Amino acid sequence: MQRFDLIVSNADIVTVGGRFNADIGVRDGRIAALAHGLDPALADQVIDAAGRMVTPGGVDAHCHLDQASDDGSKGSDDFLTGTRSAACGGTTTVIPFAMQFKGQSLDEAVADYHRRAEGQASIDYAFHLIISDASPAVVKEQLPRMVEAGYTSFKIYMTYESLKLSDREILDVLDAARTLGALSMIHAENDDCIAWLTERLLAQGKTAPRYHALAHSAIGEREATHRAISLSELVDVPILLVHVSSRAAVEQIHWARGQGFNIFSETCPQYLFLTAEDLGIGDDFHGAKCICSPPPRDADSQKAIWNGLANGTFTIFSSDHSPYNFDDPQGKKLHGEDASFDRIPNGIPGLETRLSLLMSEGVLGGRISAERFVELTATAPARLYGLYPQKGTIAVGADADLVIWDNDLDKTLRHVDLHSAADYTPYEGFKLKAWPAWTLSRGKPVWAHGAYCGTAGAGRFLPCAAPFPAQK
Amino acid sequence: MQRFDLIVSNADIVTVGGRFNADIGVRDGRIAALAHGLDPALADQVIDAAGRMVTPGGVDAHCHLDQASDDGSKGSDDFLTGTRSAACGGTTTVIPFAMQFKGQSLDEAVADYHRRAEGQASIDYAFHLIISDASPAVVKEQLPRMVEAGYTSFKIYMTYESLKLSDREILDVLDAARTLGALSMIHAENDDCIAWLTERLLAQGKTAPRYHALAHSAIGEREATHRAISLSELVDVPILLVHVSSRAAVEQIHWARGQGFNIFSETCPQYLFLTAEDLGIGDDFHGAKCICSPPPRDADSQKAIWNGLANGTFTIFSSDHSPYNFDDPQGKKLHGEDASFDRIPNGIPGLETRLSLLMSEGVLGGRISAERFVELTATAPARLYGLYPQKGTIAVGADADLVIWDNDLDKTLRHVDLHSAADYTPYEGFKLKAWPAWTLSRGKPVWAHGAYCGTAGAGRFLPCAAPFPAQK
Amino acid sequence: MQRFDLIVSNADIVTVGGRFNADIGVRDGRIAALAHGLDPALADQVIDAAGRMVTPGGVDAHCHLDQASDDGSKGSDDFLTGTRSAACGGTTTVIPFAMQFKGQSLDEAVADYHRRAEGQASIDYAFHLIISDASPAVVKEQLPRMVEAGYTSFKIYMTYESLKLSDREILDVLDAARTLGALSMIHAENDDCIAWLTERLLAQGKTAPRYHALAHSAIGEREATHRAISLSELVDVPILLVHVSSRAAVEQIHWARGQGFNIFSETCPQYLFLTAEDLGIGDDFHGAKCICSPPPRDADSQKAIWNGLANGTFTIFSSDHSPYNFDDPQGKKLHGEDASFDRIPNGIPGLETRLSLLMSEGVLGGRISAERFVELTATAPARLYGLYPQKGTIAVGADADLVIWDNDLDKTLRHVDLHSAADYTPYEGFKLKAWPAWTLSRGKPVWAHGAYCGTAGAGRFLPCAAPFPAQK
Amino acid sequence: MQRFDLIVSNADIVTVGGRFNADIGVRDGRIAALAHGLDPALADQVIDAAGRMVTPGGVDAHCHLDQASDDGSKGSDDFLTGTRSAACGGTTTVIPFAMQFKGQSLDEAVADYHRRAEGQASIDYAFHLIISDASPAVVKEQLPRMVEAGYTSFKIYMTYESLKLSDREILDVLDAARTLGALSMIHAENDDCIAWLTERLLAQGKTAPRYHALAHSAIGEREATHRAISLSELVDVPILLVHVSSRAAVEQIHWARGQGFNIFSETCPQYLFLTAEDLGIGDDFHGAKCICSPPPRDADSQKAIWNGLANGTFTIFSSDHSPYNFDDPQGKKLHGEDASFDRIPNGIPGLETRLSLLMSEGVLGGRISAERFVELTATAPARLYGLYPQKGTIAVGADADLVIWDNDLDKTLRHVDLHSAADYTPYEGFKLKAWPAWTLSRGKPVWAHGAYCGTAGAGRFLPCAAPFPAQK
Repeated sequence: MQRFDLIVSNADIVTVGGRFNADIGVRDGRIAALAHGLDPALADQVIDAAGRMVTPGGVDAHCHLDQASDDGSKGSDDFLTGTRSAACGGTTTVIPFAMQFKGQSLDEAVADYHRRAEGQASIDYAFHLIISDASPAVVKEQLPRMVEAGYTSFKIYMTYESLKLSDREILDVLDAARTLGALSMIHAENDDCIAWLTERLLAQGKTAPRYHALAHSAIGEREATHRAISLSELVDVPILLVHVSSRAAVEQIHWARGQGFNIFSETCPQYLFLTAEDLGIGDDFHGAKCICSPPPRDADSQKAIWNGLANGTFTIFSSDHSPYNFDDPQGKKLHGEDASFDRIPNGIPGLETRLSLLMSEGVLGGRISAERFVELTATAPARLYGLYPQKGTIAVGADADLVIWDNDLDKTLRHVDLHSAADYTPYEGFKLKAWPAWTLSRGKPVWAHGAYCGTAGAGRFLPCAAPFPAQK
Repeated sequence: MQRFDLIVSNADIVTVGGRFNADIGVRDGRIAALAHGLDPALADQVIDAAGRMVTPGGVDAHCHLDQASDDGSKGSDDFLTGTRSAACGGTTTVIPFAMQFKGQSLDEAVADYHRRAEGQASIDYAFHLIISDASPAVVKEQLPRMVEAGYTSFKIYMTYESLKLSDREILDVLDAARTLGALSMIHAENDDCIAWLTERLLAQGKTAPRYHALAHSAIGEREATHRAISLSELVDVPILLVHVSSRAAVEQIHWARGQGFNIFSETCPQYLFLTAEDLGIGDDFHGAKCICSPPPRDADSQKAIWNGLANGTFTIFSSDHSPYNFDDPQGKKLHGEDASFDRIPNGIPGLETRLSLLMSEGVLGGRISAERFVELTATAPARLYGLYPQKGTIAVGADADLVIWDNDLDKTLRHVDLHSAADYTPYEGFKLKAWPAWTLSRGKPVWAHGAYCGTAGAGRFLPCAAPFPAQK
Repeated sequence: MQRFDLIVSNADIVTVGGRFNADIGVRDGRIAALAHGLDPALADQVIDAAGRMVTPGGVDAHCHLDQASDDGSKGSDDFLTGTRSAACGGTTTVIPFAMQFKGQSLDEAVADYHRRAEGQASIDYAFHLIISDASPAVVKEQLPRMVEAGYTSFKIYMTYESLKLSDREILDVLDAARTLGALSMIHAENDDCIAWLTERLLAQGKTAPRYHALAHSAIGEREATHRAISLSELVDVPILLVHVSSRAAVEQIHWARGQGFNIFSETCPQYLFLTAEDLGIGDDFHGAKCICSPPPRDADSQKAIWNGLANGTFTIFSSDHSPYNFDDPQGKKLHGEDASFDRIPNGIPGLETRLSLLMSEGVLGGRISAERFVELTATAPARLYGLYPQKGTIAVGADADLVIWDNDLDKTLRHVDLHSAADYTPYEGFKLKAWPAWTLSRGKPVWAHGAYCGTAGAGRFLPCAAPFPAQK
Repeated sequence: MQRFDLIVSNADIVTVGGRFNADIGVRDGRIAALAHGLDPALADQVIDAAGRMVTPGGVDAHCHLDQASDDGSKGSDDFLTGTRSAACGGTTTVIPFAMQFKGQSLDEAVADYHRRAEGQASIDYAFHLIISDASPAVVKEQLPRMVEAGYTSFKIYMTYESLKLSDREILDVLDAARTLGALSMIHAENDDCIAWLTERLLAQGKTAPRYHALAHSAIGEREATHRAISLSELVDVPILLVHVSSRAAVEQIHWARGQGFNIFSETCPQYLFLTAEDLGIGDDFHGAKCICSPPPRDADSQKAIWNGLANGTFTIFSSDHSPYNFDDPQGKKLHGEDASFDRIPNGIPGLETRLSLLMSEGVLGGRISAERFVELTATAPARLYGLYPQKGTIAVGADADLVIWDNDLDKTLRHVDLHSAADYTPYEGFKLKAWPAWTLSRGKPVWAHGAYCGTAGAGRFLPCAAPFPAQK
């Protein structure tokens, strides 16, 4: 038997397809063996995982790192701090966005984001393309080239002035996705409904952060969800609805799947653990910390989201990490503390806390199985975005991206213990029962003994395979 | 490194959580290692699986072997022929039924079926309990003892005179299942609807086999499905709806899951590949070959069943193997060729053909992924019935129950090539693209080189764990 | 122009198909003319209705008068007091039940109830048949004779030990209804669910009146509703679901109508104005006053019921008047104040208050139109039960059954002001905006100037036409 | 008793709220009396309706007469020929459209259409406003003035380049409707879907008329229907979905009504009696005769539409009369016989045949009651558009707009027998069982003895009341 670089022994391994005890032999960053009784003498290093659950490293398929803006705002995290934060929370693959400005070529956009990531990332990364300009040149010429080069997921916005596509443009992008076997991710909110409600709220002097939750109505989310499903049905191509927040949207997705439409969907921690009330009381600007789109809803929607995680309606669970510092003139206070809700940058931090929150409340809270946790946080996103089986599972030949858990904690979540550059967490004070003891990225610890131990630049770019067969 | 009894090398391993190439090292009937480059010299035997998909051995959670009757009928297969047939088709675990006669204790029933299996089975087996007598003694005293002893699934009939339970009795059994963490399987057809329709059809002289499909209406199946869901909701306990056949029933289950109810469901090959038209034309008695309950429906229901397999509505895929010989006075001709449809024994063969049909039309036909095939045919039934991870997956420590596939076939399904004692197959002439090359049961070939090579009596009884937490 | 016995002048007439001002000329108990400017000199009597809404006299299609029992209980109202109470509240036609005891012929049952009504009723009446014995003789021989004689609606119970029919028996009755063009009314609650829950509640010492609401779960109502719909679909015959109480049942009916099934439905005041909380707090026996089946539910179900009235889901609005005196050893205290909830007679008074409650909160509260009020309380029940156009509308040739309203009231509902023999009203203290100023039965005042002015025995038996075409 | 101008004696009168035999006394164009035994000597004229059904004159709430265009096309009918045609088919009130060109004020639009109607119409008419320009001046200033002046319904297009409003503009118009108590009618098709499909079809050389049915997909109709419902829900205002054609759209409406949303809907004869196959085979240009939007669908959608008429999903039944002559360079051949489907003027004739088709196949075919016929074709549109009770019912004080039917016909529908200026009917050769014997408009025959007998200019403009309470 050949030697191993590392053996994780006595692991309580969880994969979607099985939970079993074994030793994990790692060689050259990959899992070379899963076996009983691997000889410790064969390895340079041994981690004894006895009594510990071991899951695939998290794949966070929805996060924004060092994303450019045109309004002077600046997200908290770049690739250095973002991937550090991810690693400390058990995530070993991130898929942030390469955003196209209108008029910009995708080639330029991609080159820009490679520069941003270069030498910074401590864990592996791929890129989704945000398509804000669906001109024929982009759709017909650039997208095929991009898919060829490993960018196989297209983000489509139905809202935000500078990003949104018309239904017609969406159809064009979906049709390209069909031809190329790519996956389109859709942010489904009705932009006109938001604008109309915002105008009315502002006219009534309702400008505080909490009115953001009224302006982004569940009706508008449901409408856009139904519309996105319809456009997908027309083109006959799968789509993924990102960051689903409300019962009404969940019901549309459930309906669509019953009809036999090929609809995937994602939800995020903020829709399980926050509600619109977290956007504040009265005029309190602290509510800005929880402004994101769509906004957290209410207890009834939380229940629907949990049910969707349990019954298979949701395909993946991501963070939608998009933090803006609260006390920062480029962050939540871009336009000052008196800014109306519609002028406050949207987004909250979540990369580091995603896995522990779901493990604590989902698995250890008895709502979902450990296997389903693995599916939602690692296997399914790896599969959907063409990174599987290299990422997202514990299998021979897969990258040795592993989380070895402490699952008997009674820990209080504190911002000061986190590693993002964001200056707050919306989950301050939450109780956690679990946190990674080790995070391994391609066999190397990036988080161990309560400390970050990764290396900027060690993360590699992952070209993605097209997840679906190309259709004529 | 310790030696192996067997190495399956270069396998294209499929599990629910991953598809990867590796060698499989088997020792003492269990998978001891999954690794790259296991040294062939370490093994007594090597099977080179290069280029072949390897899946977990099938778990058929719904089959009837050597089941007693009180009307003179006799099913075709006993444990010898049934398990032989299963092995030849890639199934390595069967869960037939220990049927309680009314008035009989479950202890007696179980003892009876152990006698029937003893020395006969060539693959491993567990037992479901058919509860036809839900007296307080059975529910309060015998069921807890049974679960303790490894019989953790209860079959409940809503139809068949000698087996059916009233709603009240069902509630009692479900409540016991809740307390014990057991799973209740429900045959959902409205018995009164069947009786009423049958009486009318017979009164009109409509006695031919094909009228069986009218007597067992989709309305009656839908109604009983909704009722079973309601009883489960009332008790707050999971159930599994067996052999779902119609779009209407699928829609009820889809609705229930959207409501957050804990409903599992099963379908079978006959609902994918047969229709009511297979019950014959005119008075042709050959239609009796396809009489089973519920009956095959129509193309629209087939489409709904396929969609349910793809979108997660169905949890497991079983055979409901329950053959009666066609040309047999204890079989389909129990009451002669002139017997009205209601007097013809119900059931069709399917143990041996289940996997190859679904692999051919589902996986190779592009309707479901290989991972989903594994989930439906092995992992999910093993998990639901408390046999996992010993059975149902390819993982270190699991039993080395494996199917090594021939997936490039252009084969015609013929009864003469099958190994059941049944005298026909309803799928005569079907085209197949796949069939097992080897079936291994705990590391030993039971099917290889086109021949059965198992051993009667080699199969062991598997006590099942309770699949759910016991509730107060 | 011929003379009139009575002219109601300047009436603001409401019918389902129009609201218009006109004079109503009555001759021989019927409406002989609707016209502008009828000459008062042509009439023996003139009622000036200027400024007043005039609606058809109410048809209460669900009430129990002088109904026999086999347990010593005795309903509060006989035909004398019941019809008096109805008249004072604006109802001019009642359709109580002729109940068949098991083993009794329908002919005997009907004869019995005719004796009970004889000389007592002050307004017109028809009878539904309660079929508790669905023997072939009843179904095949008696029902055709009954329909011929004007008893064209069959009440079917799915619960109550002495009344309930099995699904098979229900199918037989529905099939007879189909053949005869009759309407079957179904009380849809799952009897086994009630019995099972009751047993458990009692075993836990939960015996107070309020536990009645738990024993009669909305799940059990929903299940039986779905089942009744399915039986109706199987036979292909219309049914009417009586006294629908819960959102879950409303949703089943809505679903069925979307499927194109011919389902009618009824709700009652108690499901709009009471909730389960009215069944009391702690062990308070006063909650017995609101024990009826199904029980009042919650605010969410009330909302669904109101929506069903507005959007057309409900066909009719009846009282289900079935009062038992509270302080009476043959009433609610049949088994004493310590009796467990399951031994307390079921039913509440409502004949007199039905119309005013719905006029006040529905029409004057802006939830439904006056035309819809007329449809729900008079026209639709008359049509469904074969009494139309003689009853249920204001049209030439129809009986002059009229309500002339006081619609500007600010009145408090008090039991002491009512005319039933019941010793309480569940709506004590409710605010009313409307009450009849006059009730006319075939042109004769039965309520006027705040006093009853009817005559026992003036009411006539109404043979009903079959509401549907007889089907082969 | 005063004299009458006309007595219609022995009429079998049908209203929504009753069917009864009576004489109808007409004075000054209004119904002055409904009575038994009106003395013929009192009347100048008597029509003996013995044995004949008499219904309210039809109110056709959706027709296009003399509507302006900007592309050189010209509809077949102006107010002269259109109202003549309506009268001959039993319709006595039409509500065509006053179309606003973009940039035009509503005052100008209305003035224009009054000029077009002046001296031409032989029956009464009102106007809907087509709002193609939803500028603040229009919404805030002109709409209130218009409602005041009797234009209380706003037509909103989601498709057609020159007419469509954005979602934001729709919200503004709906909000104005809410404030004013007006009704918004929405043409719900997704414009981008149509454009995208059209582009692809044309690119594939699929230009024949029949491809119109593919370009206007049921998916696009369903999507827009859901969107319109959502916008209505957001504003909390009723809307009416016009010319619903597909099962998918019906299901959305059914869903919305179950949710308690205030959604009205309309369908038309073409969706009951035509299918996409009527748009032709191969390249046959004759299919252009049946080009309308949305297009006729298939047998399954026809079934859903019939069910929606029967179960109350549909509120009204209109013609959407919008004929273009087939053999006309301003009609269907505007761009020649080789024009691609997207360049062919949309619309078909239907004013004259609407009532007889529904009476023949709906009422006499046993699918809906005569009362429901009256509701769908007269009472409900009159009520929804603020013309009731002057129009739409047979009641004292209402206009004497009456249809006296021949209901025992076996007649073949022929274009040559019709009175529109259109040069074809899509229903050529259809069998009819019914046709009006007389049509009376305000007591004057406009159709009698098989001949038109109306007078151009006799029709009056009807200012409409706001149908709903104005909301703050």
